[in-house]
Amino acid sequence: MTDDVNGTGVTREAVASLAATADPRLRELLTGLVRHLHDFARETRLTQAEWEQAIGFLTATGQACTDTRQEFILLSDVFGVSMLVETLGGERPPGTTESTVLGPFHLTESPPRALGDDIDLVGGGEPCVISGRVLSEDGTPLPGAVLDVWQADGDGHYDVQQPESQPPGNGRGVFTADDKGRFWFRTCVPAPYPIPTDGPVGELLRATGRHPYRPAHIHFIATAPGHTPVTTHIFVAGSDYLDSDAVFAVKQSLVQDFTDTDDPALAGEFGVPNPFRHARFDLVLEQTS
Amino acid sequence: MTDDVNGTGVTREAVASLAATADPRLRELLTGLVRHLHDFARETRLTQAEWEQAIGFLTATGQACTDTRQEFILLSDVFGVSMLVETLGGERPPGTTESTVLGPFHLTESPPRALGDDIDLVGGGEPCVISGRVLSEDGTPLPGAVLDVWQADGDGHYDVQQPESQPPGNGRGVFTADDKGRFWFRTCVPAPYPIPTDGPVGELLRATGRHPYRPAHIHFIATAPGHTPVTTHIFVAGSDYLDSDAVFAVKQSLVQDFTDTDDPALAGEFGVPNPFRHARFDLVLEQTS
Ligand SMILES: [Fe+2]
Ligand SMILES: [Fe+2]
Repeated sequence: MTDDVNGTGVTREAVASLAATADPRLRELLTGLVRHLHDFARETRLTQAEWEQAIGFLTATGQACTDTRQEFILLSDVFGVSMLVETLGGERPPGTTESTVLGPFHLTESPPRALGDDIDLVGGGEPCVISGRVLSEDGTPLPGAVLDVWQADGDGHYDVQQPESQPPGNGRGVFTADDKGRFWFRTCVPAPYPIPTDGPVGELLRATGRHPYRPAHIHFIATAPGHTPVTTHIFVAGSDYLDSDAVFAVKQSLVQDFTDTDDPALAGEFGVPNPFRHARFDLVLEQTS
Repeated sequence: MTDDVNGTGVTREAVASLAATADPRLRELLTGLVRHLHDFARETRLTQAEWEQAIGFLTATGQACTDTRQEFILLSDVFGVSMLVETLGGERPPGTTESTVLGPFHLTESPPRALGDDIDLVGGGEPCVISGRVLSEDGTPLPGAVLDVWQADGDGHYDVQQPESQPPGNGRGVFTADDKGRFWFRTCVPAPYPIPTDGPVGELLRATGRHPYRPAHIHFIATAPGHTPVTTHIFVAGSDYLDSDAVFAVKQSLVQDFTDTDDPALAGEFGVPNPFRHARFDLVLEQTS
């Protein structure tokens, strides 16, 4: 019975109804969720009409999801919840590479490539070299560490978004570090890109006066035996939107210089035209205990 | 940039991103929502795997919605949010009839009926009479007040759930109060019924060890010129589940006796077999200011 004007009675009943949940973690999560949802409604004096609109929005978000599109993840992304959950789960020892969101474009398997290969299969963008080492947290190189890499092209599109103009696997590759833990490959400098705006999340961004852009970045998943894998990006220093990433995924430690390099000998070694842009950084993994 | 371990940085950024929302009420609502969602994730130390499961659940809930089914409303119902929002919006002067949730079965228009008509078109249940008056908050009768009534049958099913065995409009009617504000009609005593459990919300109820039943009730929407309409139920006193309504919609003031009545003369007046059950109550509406 829920006779009080402020709705604390219905909140109490709704929380009590979860008491018999068999899984204690599920009980904890649902209880917290119900408390926060109710507090939200109570604090904002949410109206019937507003709640109906919210229900309509959530329904449309679910119905926008397909095999190749996950609009609810996008909603979680633009509300910062994806990045928050990533941050809460991503506590790592100081000095190891910080994690960030996976993002929605890790849809296909990246093709295995040899160190030094060019993942820009089209050749339209500004040539650059990415090089560095994969290290354990104590600085020991990790030979045989594996890097899964994916990025948008110089115009801000992933291969899966442009199946007619980009060959599959463009901007993607799986690299294995050499016997000194080193990796290097060629690509083009990625461009910032907008998240999809033709669905409910796009509506939300327009209603809130927000732009849909992400700063230029390259995705990495680094794995090595005996170490915790890290899912992360590197961001291009100086890119637009570093301070207003639509999905809040930027961490200062992940911003890397793509240095203008005028060095014909080094260009020759890497097999790129001189001058070129060069991003150099190490990926540092936590040892599993 | 979101460099802190506890995620307060990403929360700050996500809230700040809403600052340019043109509609101030939308800004207030979204800001409250983002704060509570983030606090929920932080307090429960929500993991990636758990959040992925939640996203999958929300997606399935959206995709279970059709023209005749609204699984997100059902989710809101079983979390008590529908009733909470109803309660927050339903503050009325003391003495007026309290409101409760609309529920999902007001799908079709109820047919107009004459006072005294029987809305039990099948005749399977226990015969009863519903009678009373529609009054203004000062006690003045409201001639011409309109009552939209709908209910499940004696087995707990609405007409729309059993199109093969119930005629359309079974258990439904629109009645107009007489010149003294009185209404009366015949029906059968409704039975408790389960909300739909073949979708994601059913899964949730099973996981939380909850039953899906609602106590026996009859829905009313009462309207009269110069008065605020009220959407409510009357609940059958003594029904099972009055203390554990799956959608938390019971209010003590809405529970009505369906009195066993052995009165051949009165039965004759109402045109029901003697003995019969008789629920008598007034609906009291707030004057619009
Ligand atoms: Fe990306
Ligand atoms: Fe009902």
